[in-house]
Parts: sequence; structure tokens; C-alpha cells
Amino acid sequence: MTRERPKALKAEAIALRLADCPGWALAEGKLRRDLKFPDFSAAFGFMARVAMIAETLDHHPEWSNVYNRVSIELTTHDAGGVSALDFEFAARLNRLLDAS
Amino acid sequence: MTRERPKALKAEAIALRLADCPGWALAEGKLRRDLKFPDFSAAFGFMARVAMIAETLDHHPEWSNVYNRVSIELTTHDAGGVSALDFEFAARLNRLLDAS
Amino acid sequence: MTRERPKALKAEAIALRLADCPGWALAEGKLRRDLKFPDFSAAFGFMARVAMIAETLDHHPEWSNVYNRVSIELTTHDAGGVSALDFEFAARLNRLLDAS
Amino acid sequence: MTRERPKALKAEAIALRLADCPGWALAEGKLRRDLKFPDFSAAFGFMARVAMIAETLDHHPEWSNVYNRVSIELTTHDAGGVSALDFEFAARLNRLLDAS
Repeated sequence: MTRERPKALKAEAIALRLADCPGWALAEGKLRRDLKFPDFSAAFGFMARVAMIAETLDHHPEWSNVYNRVSIELTTHDAGGVSALDFEFAARLNRLLDAS
Repeated sequence: MTRERPKALKAEAIALRLADCPGWALAEGKLRRDLKFPDFSAAFGFMARVAMIAETLDHHPEWSNVYNRVSIELTTHDAGGVSALDFEFAARLNRLLDAS
Repeated sequence: MTRERPKALKAEAIALRLADCPGWALAEGKLRRDLKFPDFSAAFGFMARVAMIAETLDHHPEWSNVYNRVSIELTTHDAGGVSALDFEFAARLNRLLDAS
Repeated sequence: MTRERPKALKAEAIALRLADCPGWALAEGKLRRDLKFPDFSAAFGFMARVAMIAETLDHHPEWSNVYNRVSIELTTHDAGGVSALDFEFAARLNRLLDAS
């Protein structure tokens, strides 16, 4: 499968898309969402699901975890900025959270 | 830490404890619970959490997964039957499901 | 993305492909591999990686785990038998094991 | 089980223990190890195993992942510094890496 290389979105396009992407914000040029769970078990169960999204999209987050907190940053290094692929990732992650 | 070796519970004791352990049944001499999730992602996220319970208790299930279904069987091989440790595992797993 | 529906392979084609797929055998009409790891931690770490393969291919195994043992069965229900997709899964899983 | 509260180790004791703890260094008052794996799959398979250590010890790392890199920081908040518990975690993590 060939996939078109994602391009960096311009600031206006990012702002428009963020309006449809609850929980996410632009921080230091990346999409960012901070999450809090009841405990470590819930946080890591969620991370296992995010890992499967990452491999499915072949697009991987910059993320960190401290006990029940998970912070996720998304950017597309090849594109030099936030691309449609980051918003696709964010949307999938939101669907996963909505269904929990 | 030394831990007392768990002993196999008698049929009457198992029946009493099962009354307090919703979702579980005795099947072929083991505690068994069959679960169904929305999809594979949800099922495996749950399995990652069960794996942490297993390592914490140093007691491991016999379990299987097919897409969104997970079947869990618990027995204590050293004891030759169902022990208090299996009910401890089942109770923790139930708390995890209740909180989801 | 539209993907062609996989078709069940005939016995001869399965036998040919199995020759290139070390560790796997045909059992009750499914591809099967039984694995043994040093302990539960290693077994489940492997399972987390297999789960990512499953989601990437949108093709999921029938699998079970008991402590350090993992058994994996592959079949394509839509096709009514073993398909090229099962061999793709088996090959990816073998690459993962070879690299460990 | 009652467990004695861990105490912060003094600089000299930390230095002595670090000598027996390859791969780890003291950075900003925490034990730190940076790891690199072949790919995301290998990195996350490892993380699933670290998560089980964390729950077993009831002691959780501050950690981050970017593709094939995992950074782990250990400190004991209750103790206000690095404690024996952090070295126990680091030793278990090293045994896991040595066995891979």
C-alpha cells in the first residue's frame, strides 16, 4: 500500500480541526491531551489500547505516564508539524475514551 | 515473605463463596467466567490489567481470547483444586470490571 | 481502503506454504503454533506484541495462555478455512520471535 | 502485609548501590535509565512487562516513550528521594533486560 505523505497543516486549519477534537490543544507545536485515570491499572490498560492504534496507523505518540496520569503529544516529524494523521490519531483515541 | 500454601476448598465452602462472587461458576473443578467486550481492543486492554493482577498475586489464570471474548479459568495446581487464592483473584477481577 | 476478501487455500497450497513457515502446523483445519517462554512476564510481553499485529492486520487469533505457555490458532472465518491472511499473520509472528 | 515505609537514601549510599546497578544514573535526584529497542513493538512489549513489575511492587515509574525509546525515572515520593525500593525496581528491570 502506498500512502500519500502527510503534510503539515497551517495554523488556521489546525484551529478549525481542534474545534472538532475535544480534549486536545496545541502546545509547543504539537497536539496534546492530558488524561487522568482512577489508578495505574486503568492508565496502563488504556495505554495498551493506544499502542494498538499507533501500530495500526504506523504513527506513534510521544507520551508519558506517572501512576494514573497519561500525557500524549502528537506531531508528524516527516511533515515538520501537525498533520491530518495526528488528527486521525486523536479522533481514534477520543472514540476509545468515549466508549469506556 | 513466606506465604502459607493455599489449600483446596471443599465443595460446600466453594458454593458459599460463589454466592458472593457474581459472574463466576464452577466448571470442571475450576472457577470460570466468560466475558464479552465491544471489540478486540477493549478485550486486550482488559487482559493487560488482568495480567497485572496475576503477577501481583503470583497466581496465573488459564485463559483464552477470541476477538472480543475472554474466558478465564482459575484453579490452584499446588492445592489440587479451587483455593482462597482463586477467589481473591476473582474478586479483584470483578472490582476491575465494576469500575470500568 | 478496500481489501480483497481472502479465500480459503486448498490443502496443497497450505502444505506448500507451511514448508516456509517454521513452527506452524495444521491442526483441526487451523494453523497452530505452541510457544513456551521463561515465565509469565515474558509470555505476556509477547502477547502484547501479537495483539498489535492482530489490530494492524485486522485479523485476530484464537489464543490461550497458561503461565509461560501461549497457544495460537489462526483461521479466516469469512473464508471458511486457512487463507493467505493467516500465513501473513504467522510470518509476522515468526519475524517477531526471530528478532527476540 | 505491613511494609516498612522506605526511607530516602543518602548520597553515599546511592553511589554505592549505583555501582551494582548497571545502566542507571542519578539525574535530578532520580534514578534514570534510557533504553532503545529495535522498534515500537519491542519497546511496548517491554513496557507491558515493566507495568507488571510496577504493580507487583506497588511502586510506579515516571516514564516516557517515543517510538523505540523508553526513558524510566524512579523516585519514592513518600520518602522524598531515592529509596531501596527504587533500587529493587531497577534491579528487577535489569534482570528482565538481561534475560531478553
